[in-house]
Amino acid sequence: MGRKNKVKRAICLISGGMDSALLGFIAKKIGYQIYALTFDYGQRHKKEIRCAKKISRALGVKEHRILKIDLRQFGGSALTSKIKVPTNRSLKKIKYSKEIPITYVPARNTIFLSLALAYAEIIKADAIFIGANCLDYSGYPDCRSQYFKEFQRLANLATKRTISGKKIEIKYPILYFDKKKIVKEGIKLGVPFEYTWSCYEGNKRACGKCDSCVLRLNGFERAGYKDPIEYESQ
Amino acid sequence: MGRKNKVKRAICLISGGMDSALLGFIAKKIGYQIYALTFDYGQRHKKEIRCAKKISRALGVKEHRILKIDLRQFGGSALTSKIKVPTNRSLKKIKYSKEIPITYVPARNTIFLSLALAYAEIIKADAIFIGANCLDYSGYPDCRSQYFKEFQRLANLATKRTISGKKIEIKYPILYFDKKKIVKEGIKLGVPFEYTWSCYEGNKRACGKCDSCVLRLNGFERAGYKDPIEYESQ
Repeated sequence: MGRKNKVKRAICLISGGMDSALLGFIAKKIGYQIYALTFDYGQRHKKEIRCAKKISRALGVKEHRILKIDLRQFGGSALTSKIKVPTNRSLKKIKYSKEIPITYVPARNTIFLSLALAYAEIIKADAIFIGANCLDYSGYPDCRSQYFKEFQRLANLATKRTISGKKIEIKYPILYFDKKKIVKEGIKLGVPFEYTWSCYEGNKRACGKCDSCVLRLNGFERAGYKDPIEYESQ
Repeated sequence: MGRKNKVKRAICLISGGMDSALLGFIAKKIGYQIYALTFDYGQRHKKEIRCAKKISRALGVKEHRILKIDLRQFGGSALTSKIKVPTNRSLKKIKYSKEIPITYVPARNTIFLSLALAYAEIIKADAIFIGANCLDYSGYPDCRSQYFKEFQRLANLATKRTISGKKIEIKYPILYFDKKKIVKEGIKLGVPFEYTWSCYEGNKRACGKCDSCVLRLNGFERAGYKDPIEYESQ
């Protein structure tokens, strides 16, 4: 119990997107000392990494690690290989599709949480915050609460820290937030949305047409705020 | 059920050591088509990777992927950083130590199994074989059967393949094998032990003094076979 009165530490998975930016500010508000972790997993553009750095700086993190792990070696997703992402789909079509989106990366959250678990063990973290969202990604098996509960059970057995009676809590506080709520809560907590990036393309301005842009723009519109980033077309 | 009559596929985690070499030959004997997966995780020497290649070739694998993931970025283990490994310890001291060895890599099996799970999803594998051993590594939290059972439960929830009713079985057939049994079974199945490497050092000849060499040599001795690799001193 040596750290009883000490500040609690949390690993926050910061991607450069708006969800994980809010996640960081939620962890900060609770009072955690934040260790940001970003994965450079062969995304199609490096813009997200630069955004993750800016967000981490704004959060005042204790440290920010960027872990290179090339998931393209396995293939199988539009976000990591050369498959074309869909554009100009209606909000309804995006949100109520029964299919698992082609942007799905196999076992991604399991890989990310495992690596976060290693990092948590090393820096003696009390929690891992992940910005998964089951509304936007309803088809992803690893974006459901039952999945995260199961990962918690695994984590309890998997490290020196956890088998010695300490906890590494898996926290997924925005699992049920829609984009409107993400914008509203973000504004309340001072999230610098101008540093966040959602577009599947890595151009200077966001495309405004891919599923991710459509969801983001709709979130800002419904929340009653103007998105501070620039778009090609709207 | 389109693959009902087809050969079953297995991911085998091949490290270059003798345990995972036997693992591959066990999977082969059962009749699996093998996809070997080796992690280049910043081991202190590349010799193990070369051994993994030779073993995979001997196994006649369908493919062999070597995934680079630098766990040294996190630090915390003698196998991935510059901490000195212990030498000249007695067999008793190695085997009955209550401490978690300094060669422990945080969350290693969780990381390896997650990556194997992604690979399994992509190639539609029916099983993942891991050569964990709880006798040699009695202090490792992620080398216990309860840990692997929990990972199975996670895997069942974590991928498109598993939530659609297909199985990716986590197999750990040598969990309770001691080194004598590994040698005996290996000889029976034709494992090319001359291609395997156990020594913590990456020199031309094995040192014969580190814990790993001591365990290996004792295994061969008790099995009544001569270890085919060369040693500095014995």
